[in-house]
Amino acid sequence: MVGGGRGALIGPVHRIAATMDGRAELVAGVFSSDPVRSRASGADLFLDPSRVYGSYREMAKAEAAMPPELRLDFVVIVTPNHQHYGPARLFLESGFNVVCDKPVTFDLAQAIKLREIAQRMAKVFVLTHNYTGNAMVKQARELVRNRSLGAIRKVVVEYPQGWLSEAIERTGMKQASWRTDPKRSGAAGCMADLGTHAENLARYITGLRIEELCADLSTVVKGRRLDDDGNVLVRYKGGAKGVLHASQICAGDENNLNIRVYGTRASLEWHQEHPNELAVKFADQPRQIWRRGNSYVGNEAKRFTRVPFGHPEGYLEAFANVYREAFRAISAEVEGRPIPRNLDFPTIDDGVEGMAFIEAVVRSSRLGARWVRPAAH
Amino acid sequence: MVGGGRGALIGPVHRIAATMDGRAELVAGVFSSDPVRSRASGADLFLDPSRVYGSYREMAKAEAAMPPELRLDFVVIVTPNHQHYGPARLFLESGFNVVCDKPVTFDLAQAIKLREIAQRMAKVFVLTHNYTGNAMVKQARELVRNRSLGAIRKVVVEYPQGWLSEAIERTGMKQASWRTDPKRSGAAGCMADLGTHAENLARYITGLRIEELCADLSTVVKGRRLDDDGNVLVRYKGGAKGVLHASQICAGDENNLNIRVYGTRASLEWHQEHPNELAVKFADQPRQIWRRGNSYVGNEAKRFTRVPFGHPEGYLEAFANVYREAFRAISAEVEGRPIPRNLDFPTIDDGVEGMAFIEAVVRSSRLGARWVRPAAH
Amino acid sequence: MVGGGRGALIGPVHRIAATMDGRAELVAGVFSSDPVRSRASGADLFLDPSRVYGSYREMAKAEAAMPPELRLDFVVIVTPNHQHYGPARLFLESGFNVVCDKPVTFDLAQAIKLREIAQRMAKVFVLTHNYTGNAMVKQARELVRNRSLGAIRKVVVEYPQGWLSEAIERTGMKQASWRTDPKRSGAAGCMADLGTHAENLARYITGLRIEELCADLSTVVKGRRLDDDGNVLVRYKGGAKGVLHASQICAGDENNLNIRVYGTRASLEWHQEHPNELAVKFADQPRQIWRRGNSYVGNEAKRFTRVPFGHPEGYLEAFANVYREAFRAISAEVEGRPIPRNLDFPTIDDGVEGMAFIEAVVRSSRLGARWVRPAAH
Amino acid sequence: MVGGGRGALIGPVHRIAATMDGRAELVAGVFSSDPVRSRASGADLFLDPSRVYGSYREMAKAEAAMPPELRLDFVVIVTPNHQHYGPARLFLESGFNVVCDKPVTFDLAQAIKLREIAQRMAKVFVLTHNYTGNAMVKQARELVRNRSLGAIRKVVVEYPQGWLSEAIERTGMKQASWRTDPKRSGAAGCMADLGTHAENLARYITGLRIEELCADLSTVVKGRRLDDDGNVLVRYKGGAKGVLHASQICAGDENNLNIRVYGTRASLEWHQEHPNELAVKFADQPRQIWRRGNSYVGNEAKRFTRVPFGHPEGYLEAFANVYREAFRAISAEVEGRPIPRNLDFPTIDDGVEGMAFIEAVVRSSRLGARWVRPAAH
Repeated sequence: MVGGGRGALIGPVHRIAATMDGRAELVAGVFSSDPVRSRASGADLFLDPSRVYGSYREMAKAEAAMPPELRLDFVVIVTPNHQHYGPARLFLESGFNVVCDKPVTFDLAQAIKLREIAQRMAKVFVLTHNYTGNAMVKQARELVRNRSLGAIRKVVVEYPQGWLSEAIERTGMKQASWRTDPKRSGAAGCMADLGTHAENLARYITGLRIEELCADLSTVVKGRRLDDDGNVLVRYKGGAKGVLHASQICAGDENNLNIRVYGTRASLEWHQEHPNELAVKFADQPRQIWRRGNSYVGNEAKRFTRVPFGHPEGYLEAFANVYREAFRAISAEVEGRPIPRNLDFPTIDDGVEGMAFIEAVVRSSRLGARWVRPAAH
Repeated sequence: MVGGGRGALIGPVHRIAATMDGRAELVAGVFSSDPVRSRASGADLFLDPSRVYGSYREMAKAEAAMPPELRLDFVVIVTPNHQHYGPARLFLESGFNVVCDKPVTFDLAQAIKLREIAQRMAKVFVLTHNYTGNAMVKQARELVRNRSLGAIRKVVVEYPQGWLSEAIERTGMKQASWRTDPKRSGAAGCMADLGTHAENLARYITGLRIEELCADLSTVVKGRRLDDDGNVLVRYKGGAKGVLHASQICAGDENNLNIRVYGTRASLEWHQEHPNELAVKFADQPRQIWRRGNSYVGNEAKRFTRVPFGHPEGYLEAFANVYREAFRAISAEVEGRPIPRNLDFPTIDDGVEGMAFIEAVVRSSRLGARWVRPAAH
Repeated sequence: MVGGGRGALIGPVHRIAATMDGRAELVAGVFSSDPVRSRASGADLFLDPSRVYGSYREMAKAEAAMPPELRLDFVVIVTPNHQHYGPARLFLESGFNVVCDKPVTFDLAQAIKLREIAQRMAKVFVLTHNYTGNAMVKQARELVRNRSLGAIRKVVVEYPQGWLSEAIERTGMKQASWRTDPKRSGAAGCMADLGTHAENLARYITGLRIEELCADLSTVVKGRRLDDDGNVLVRYKGGAKGVLHASQICAGDENNLNIRVYGTRASLEWHQEHPNELAVKFADQPRQIWRRGNSYVGNEAKRFTRVPFGHPEGYLEAFANVYREAFRAISAEVEGRPIPRNLDFPTIDDGVEGMAFIEAVVRSSRLGARWVRPAAH
Repeated sequence: MVGGGRGALIGPVHRIAATMDGRAELVAGVFSSDPVRSRASGADLFLDPSRVYGSYREMAKAEAAMPPELRLDFVVIVTPNHQHYGPARLFLESGFNVVCDKPVTFDLAQAIKLREIAQRMAKVFVLTHNYTGNAMVKQARELVRNRSLGAIRKVVVEYPQGWLSEAIERTGMKQASWRTDPKRSGAAGCMADLGTHAENLARYITGLRIEELCADLSTVVKGRRLDDDGNVLVRYKGGAKGVLHASQICAGDENNLNIRVYGTRASLEWHQEHPNELAVKFADQPRQIWRRGNSYVGNEAKRFTRVPFGHPEGYLEAFANVYREAFRAISAEVEGRPIPRNLDFPTIDDGVEGMAFIEAVVRSSRLGARWVRPAAH
């Protein structure tokens, strides 16, 4: 693991998610750019001190030299955005599979380069757009794919949060600090953190890609240097329309990611905060609530279910599902078997697509919210 | 009453709403442009046949000649949009107060003329944007006004319906037929029917007026001649941003009008389909659900409540609240008393604002979804 | 109308409900046992003073002498429980149809007598168990009747309120005062006010009658003289089991009447505070939410619907549905036509059944919560 | 681990829960009474074959002989009910701490004996009433303890399931088979599986113990040999009343465990299927929804939270919380430190109380649903 030391938010989440099914173990890491802090975090995690490093370069070098039976199967990168590309590139080129938090890189150019490297090295690259790990999100995708909804006409996807309603980045709060800093977050703040999850979720479920978009981003909190709110009109390839909005200043909202997909025959609705349910609405039938774990859900949703219906699964389980699926590819790669084709986890391609989305919304907004097309990539 | 005969949708609603508190009685009307049908509808309603007319001109003339004690206190116009202006103008000029369904006229020019006439005649003009009659909508407005939310930053207002997901206007279905006909509905379909309710609701609660907007309207169902879906980015005067979307092709949605208002301190959320509740979210307190009829709600919400808490009020009661308040003005006008100043019902001014909104979204959309300002009015 | 003057709770509800469809008009009444107050209330209601009376006896005598064209079609009794029997009996014997609030009488003996009188006089007697007027309650009954649920196994019905959590009857609050007074309410408090609604709702939907019950009633608030809370185990004829509980001391609850019915194939759930929805749960299908006003609901639910789907109906509309159906019987009686057979409103038979229920729960509880059978009746 | 091999339901849950925080590791076990199956399961779990056993006796003997550094810190027992007592006793007496699934034993006598053994051996005994691990259940308890609700008056606790609506035990379905078998489940079926969770949850939150109860248990599905449904009236020590019902034949219900607690000042409501929320209702304030992870929740709820607000935690996290807390005691015991006093996990005392509850409901029901007192213990 790279990053995720004491006080980190997402590092512990990855550790629980990766090990939930008893298929992985944390054995090495660099948990901070400060070697002392890195070692302290390693000790917290019961690691062998000899495999806790002071820099990712040191780690890559040492771990690449390990004998096969001790060698890492994959590396997890959970640093702030501006520190994804460097270690991702190095570990790929050192022969490791990589799991990386989103957004994949600092900018689109880095993402495209990383894609080239991953392909060249023939390594597995996993991007943790974790929400697509939810069983009922997979069910939603299946309902779109099997044409239960008919042709898709409209998509409304939202991700309102409220935790940055005030300028808490000035209080020294670490998470707030880097996420609002253009040098660490990239060209976008809210859109890089949340908007890209929304875009990814909509694309995952519907398969639709954005033809053009019109984005009105705002920096609502005075003195903040990146967008903390954004409203986007979307036109998808093929003719569907959409609305996408995300925010960090929606006071009182938590992680209210949700999506509605409207088709010619029916529509569906899913809310991240109540992930075990999926509403399906036909015009001429009682509204349906599909619930995780039941016999009537499809095979994909079943494959990513751990506990019986009515026993709620949550954020960690969805995150663990990304790992569960990634392990199908990683174990094949490690064992020299052909990598399965029908994989269902976000990859570097999703990362490139996401960075193109972020680049486009920023460009549109800077033009005064004019229609733009995501860059070809 | 003008319109609202056999088979009408909104006529019966007005009749129940106007008489719910026992303060009004239906005594005259023209219920159809076909005199035979008009008379049949009048008989259904137990009216004196001598006061059931074959045209609104005939009615205006005859009723204006009535002696004071029999004279109508107000006229209700519930015809399709293109037939609002004619009767509204004539009845105002004949000395009657007027209640008119929304949108107020066929186009903005008519609305401006009507405003001039209503002012000149010094008559009461009531526009039935009925949703603002809901007690908890009034509570929402009070929370904005008393600064409970702080300064308003963002408004998300939606009105998705699904009943026009297919081209039912071609089946002869009356409601669908005129609402999708540019000669009867006006320049907009969905936006005139639903978008204008959304704009009105947002303005009622927040007091915010639109500075500029960017509207992407669609005609989703093939062969339809007006928009049946629209997504709008909004910039309000004073700096708040907004998203407004409405649709008639959201399969499975019914009348899912809803609004979220985000302020610096807190946010609120209200859903028309569950109108007795209002969610208020402070960042650092348990989420609050305000429920109609309780001791803690404000005076305005209390003034528009008929039954105790936990006994749900609905659409008709909200509609009746518009009448309840309008009667304060109408009875004053009829009795020659000064019209109260602190009135809380939609007027011709709201009608002009609404028509300017409709005109602007159509203009923006025709320009390819470019930012435009509503016309000065 | 008998009762329902200034300050009354249920009187205005009856007036709105009875006139909502434009089929009835209030023309006479005695609104208080105090003639001065009665006249004042009559004036509020724009009544002809000659038809506002000082006692129900005076009213019955005068109204019975009216010529046919002015004669009342029915009388509505909305006095406290101990004042139901007297006027109901007199008006029936004077030849009037009667609508009476629940519980029908002060005790079971009175109810049985009243049944005999109503039958002998061949008049229509309507008991306003208003909740059964809800469209989706009718849908629930239809789903039971058409065996969608299979055979019924279990019924859970609840009616928790919280408004009597404190001894507000000592503050002079009128509603609280008579409802907690054994001389006016009868042998039960909470069970007469709420438990009987719960029993009626369960019986209406399922058709099940109680074989025996075990009731643990409590007087929770010190000094109160009647039960304000009650928990009841139920065994229905035919073998189904049930739980029924009602309360006036459930702090924070409003009118949370709700029911769950479990069958061999499926179950249903309905909540009075969200009356437009009905949940239907099959073991092997997505959960269904049936919503009022849709094409898929049955004919009975459709017959009692006023506004389109997604426009919520509430308490008053349900109450008005009892009147709408009662008018089918009353108009037939008044016009000398045979009274239709397929009527769907609560009658004196429901009143007798309800009083037997109340008598049984009180008897059981006094025995220390032992199993008892409702008295034969 | 004892039990929990291939095809088991609760074994994998314990494994995820115990290891979620990276504080425990599975190193030995007997996973089936069939040695071949046991070994196969051990291999699935990547265990050292030398520590996979053919019987719990074999395991106890071998593991007790392990050197300190390899010695088990605790043993988890996840066999059917009739196989709890034997291994629990043996492992305690062999000097191991024990974690045991509920209900703790086959009958009350065994539970009392086990309590004596655990006390005598001074070992930690953890009973996995997992639902009390939910953060918002802990918040509920805190609100009761700090008197936010006032004095408790009424408790309604339910646990309806529907999975045994049909006689699936006859299809060979393993879970259904032993849970409906008096030789393996004990004197009760539904009440041992679900009723005891409900009793435990109510006691955990309120601190109330049952004075007497009246239970009407049913065997609804023909041919079944244990209760599959039960309705219970409860009188708590100190005067509060309660309703407790649980079922396995509530078609369409999943794991709808829920509780309402009514106090003199306010009430609370929690639903296991939406565990991140806790409703708190004061009579004269907007209803409150407390949500896990917020700054305003109490310290106990905070201590058992892994991910930020709005990222739902679920069943596994709650289960893991029992382990998290148990590890405070177990690690102290293992390291020879004094066991902390302020522990918050279910113990053998809860097990005895639960078995007394089960014994009492069965006794009451056999007497025809008469009031009985739980046996002194």
